[in-house]
Amino acid sequence: MKRYTKKNFPRAKIRRFLEPGPIVLISSAHRGERNIMTLGWHMMLSFEPARVGCFIWDQNHSFDLIRRSRQCVINLPTYDMADAVVGIGNTHGPEVDKFERFKLTAAPASKVEAPLIAECYANFECELADAGLIRKHGLFVFEVVKAHVATSPKYPTTMHYRGDGVFMVSGRSVSFRRKFKRVNL
Amino acid sequence: MKRYTKKNFPRAKIRRFLEPGPIVLISSAHRGERNIMTLGWHMMLSFEPARVGCFIWDQNHSFDLIRRSRQCVINLPTYDMADAVVGIGNTHGPEVDKFERFKLTAAPASKVEAPLIAECYANFECELADAGLIRKHGLFVFEVVKAHVATSPKYPTTMHYRGDGVFMVSGRSVSFRRKFKRVNL
Repeated sequence: MKRYTKKNFPRAKIRRFLEPGPIVLISSAHRGERNIMTLGWHMMLSFEPARVGCFIWDQNHSFDLIRRSRQCVINLPTYDMADAVVGIGNTHGPEVDKFERFKLTAAPASKVEAPLIAECYANFECELADAGLIRKHGLFVFEVVKAHVATSPKYPTTMHYRGDGVFMVSGRSVSFRRKFKRVNL
Repeated sequence: MKRYTKKNFPRAKIRRFLEPGPIVLISSAHRGERNIMTLGWHMMLSFEPARVGCFIWDQNHSFDLIRRSRQCVINLPTYDMADAVVGIGNTHGPEVDKFERFKLTAAPASKVEAPLIAECYANFECELADAGLIRKHGLFVFEVVKAHVATSPKYPTTMHYRGDGVFMVSGRSVSFRRKFKRVNL
């Protein structure tokens, strides 16, 4: 797997990576336990503060770790990590440590206790901003409190899940900037 | 623009088209007014019933049409419709009729009053299932009550917004089905 050089990234611009709808890896930790899960059901909810909604099924082991610690990291894997992404989605914690099983590096975050996945293109440290939608909709509203993003390439090649074991791999980027009114960018 | 032959599609499988995170066009109608807006902030929330969360800014003209009618259609445009997609996102209703301006055909839906956009690859007729998250999070929880999907191709070429006028165009599809446990498909 690649290793990226990352730097602090403006949180108000993380839509660049999340709005296209990639599969992400959610890392979490609580009282000595840690876990990783794959997640495809997420959306931007606000630029500033940078808020992201994530649907987490209550049968996932990560559900309790995240709800209790009120923190997580949203990690953005690239297509070269496909085997780890698929493997994590098909492995049930807490039986195995997924960092060890999938040869991923747990790096310390700066604002949360949950670890970053070093091999991922980007890491978004999150705090739970609203727990009120969890019971009814399984929806965790997170605020991104710190964003680490690879300095290159500008746009990562990401995986987007379609169900039935099929992923769409992100394609080229096309700018229509000149056709936009500035207020709508 | 292409015209697709469509058929009724199982609602429990619409994740195939929405989970990868494409830009969609939301059509709405209320008391003789109709409108179209572009939308990138959406997510699956449930398979059965098929529920989708959509963030709609209260400054959009569509906000009122959808909140009052409690209905909309989520239409999935393909990359050949890029000029219409960008144009709609940069045109403010109610000054213009976006169907006329962008040469789109309003076709009757079967279960809602909002029109389908005939040129789109898929049309998901929606009823508002939960209005309780609108005020706090701008989040409309819709239930898809009818899905019309093109019979071909199996996977459409869609547009995924990154901000700053840049779109990612969906790439190839890759199956990892044999690496999945059946329960996780």
